[in-house]
Order: sequence, then structure tokens, then C-alpha cells
Amino acid sequence: MKILIIGGNGTIGKKVTEHFSQNHEVIVAGRTSGELNVDISDSGSITNLLQKTGSLDAIICIAGIAKWAPFNEMTEEDFEIGLKSKLMGQVNLVRIGQDYINAGGSITLTTGILADDPVVMTTSAAIVNGAIHSFVKAVVLEIESGVRVNAVAPGLVEDSAEKYKDYFPGYSPIPMKQVVRAYIRSVEGRVTGEVIRIYS
Amino acid sequence: MKILIIGGNGTIGKKVTEHFSQNHEVIVAGRTSGELNVDISDSGSITNLLQKTGSLDAIICIAGIAKWAPFNEMTEEDFEIGLKSKLMGQVNLVRIGQDYINAGGSITLTTGILADDPVVMTTSAAIVNGAIHSFVKAVVLEIESGVRVNAVAPGLVEDSAEKYKDYFPGYSPIPMKQVVRAYIRSVEGRVTGEVIRIYS
Repeated sequence: MKILIIGGNGTIGKKVTEHFSQNHEVIVAGRTSGELNVDISDSGSITNLLQKTGSLDAIICIAGIAKWAPFNEMTEEDFEIGLKSKLMGQVNLVRIGQDYINAGGSITLTTGILADDPVVMTTSAAIVNGAIHSFVKAVVLEIESGVRVNAVAPGLVEDSAEKYKDYFPGYSPIPMKQVVRAYIRSVEGRVTGEVIRIYS
Repeated sequence: MKILIIGGNGTIGKKVTEHFSQNHEVIVAGRTSGELNVDISDSGSITNLLQKTGSLDAIICIAGIAKWAPFNEMTEEDFEIGLKSKLMGQVNLVRIGQDYINAGGSITLTTGILADDPVVMTTSAAIVNGAIHSFVKAVVLEIESGVRVNAVAPGLVEDSAEKYKDYFPGYSPIPMKQVVRAYIRSVEGRVTGEVIRIYS
């Protein structure tokens, strides 16, 4: 398979890239690193990227940001960051990316446990993740040519557990191999419209 | 109680207003009708409204729009409509409205079944509703002074079932009294951070 991994150099992305590179042709894209650059909050940048990659068997997106801050300090502009990047960036990736996916191929988005079990300072991240969970269910009712769309929703992942553990009291750190397996299920399995939750 | 009902003249709003008016002081606001006008997609308009109402025991929002269209015809601007109105409008209502709510009071938002069981043409509505479901869970972890926040998620409601039934094959029309009871649970009960689903 020819697989584009956006955010393939991040904490999760590195492990996902490492896995798929063993048996597939992988192209890594990122905002500032990777073979190709893309800013998913800009739909023109998504189109540019896909014109460079050409047709693909799978797109995996492990990119997009949302601001973490106390709710009472969040401005409208702060919420806008997540809406433009991790929410509409991933929606636009499906809108634009579907035309570049070969028959039976897939687009895998990334959300997270905050959609279901948020913690303090994550109103924006919760919004974005919850939105994508519902989007995935809705879009597969309409998407043409059999392109599959799923989201992987990881919990607190092992490789960043030390950094974030104080924000996630009592949350289980998820082994990276288990997180990678969620992406394998989406890319190599036949599921579509699924939110693959890896919370414990 | 002194209750502000935004969208109190809509299909659901009319029935909710009718109920609460029996025993409470109700102020109805709407974009073009009602005692007071408000455009929830404009945070300045929300502030203006609340300066007029003064302190409240409950705010109920049954307002906000999202564009319905086939996914492949939806532009970024089309998604923006729902993000500004039904999503950020309701988020801003909590941000701004919390300071106008008396102790033990509540803010009740409205979403819908499309968050969990979307139908064709509803990618935008699904996004907005799913986002608010996660927002409600996240915001109550942080909101101060005991203000409660819930969302009512109705299915296909009886009073608009005739109009929408072709979009919702096999969905149960929900009696209006059952929908009204969901708002009563949020306003007069003690729940917070709940999505009150009325799907069947």
C-alpha cells in the first residue's frame, strides 16, 4: 500500500510510521518536518500536498491542534484554533482526500479520550474530538467510491504519559503498540464509520 | 424561577415555553420573534440580551442552525454556519451566561440525535451536536459557582415529523410532552454535565 501519514513525526506518528514502513510505501508529511509539508488548517495546503503524493491507498492523520486552557480564560479566538486545525482540518482532509484514495482505501483521523472523558482545561479539545466522532458516523453514509473513514481515539498514550500524567489522574497509560494496532485495524481491516477507542 | 428561553417560538421552543410559563416567569428571545431579540452566532448580541434580562435562574437555548446538504456539496463556508451558530453560539452562551445565573441555576443547550445516529446530508449538524455533547461534559469540570449545564438531545420530534420524516427512515417520532420533560429534568432536577437523550 501507498500510505500518507500526516503528523508522522509526532509522538504517536513516529510509532505508526515505524510500523507501516516495514511493509508499505510510506510518505510522511508534517507542518515543519517530514518529506512533505502541510498545514491542515489550510485547505489549499491539503490540496497541494495531495497533488504531490498522487493517488494513495490510505491517509492517516495524526495532526491538528486545539488550545488547552481554563474555560474561563478561553476566548472565541482560542476555540477557533481547534475548530480550524484539528476539526475542519480533518473534515477538509476527507472532503479533498477522498478523490485521491484508491478503491477500498481508507482515511483514518485521530481524536482522543477527551471526547468521552474530558479533564480540566480541555473544553476545546473535547469539542473537536466529539465533533469528529459524530462526523465519521455521518460522512460514511454519503462518501462515494467505497472510501472508508474511521477515527482512532487514543487515551493517554505511554510515550507522553510522563508529560501529561498530572492532567489525567487515574487514566491508564496506553502502550504504544496498542495504539498502533488501532491504526492497523482501520487501514488493513474493512471497518468504516468507526471510532476505534483505545482507552484502557 | 426566572427563565430565559432562546428560540422559545420554534417547534420545540413553543411547547417548552408553554410548559414553564404555567409556573415561572419566562422571557422568550429569538432572532426575529420573542420579547427580546438575539443572534446567538454573535457573542455581542448574547451579552446585550443578558444585560437586558439581568440575573436568571435558568437559560434554555433551543436555537442555532447548521446547514443541511450533501457532503460533497458542502463548502468550508457551509460548515462555518453551524460552527458559528449552533456550536459556538451555545458555547458562548455558557461562557457569557454563567455570570448571569443565580446559585443552583442552570443552562440547558439543545443538540439532537444526529450526534449519535446521523442521516444523509447531516455531516455539519452531526459535527455540531457531537461537539456540544463533549463540551457539556468538559465544561462542568470547571464551571464556577455551581451553575449546572446540560444538553437535551431530541430525536425526530412529533411536531416536525411530517416535514422531516423522509430524511429519518424508521426513526421514532418523539411526543412533544416527552421532549418537554427532558428540559424539566435539566431545569428543575439537579443533574449537570448530562446529555439527556430522548431518542425513542
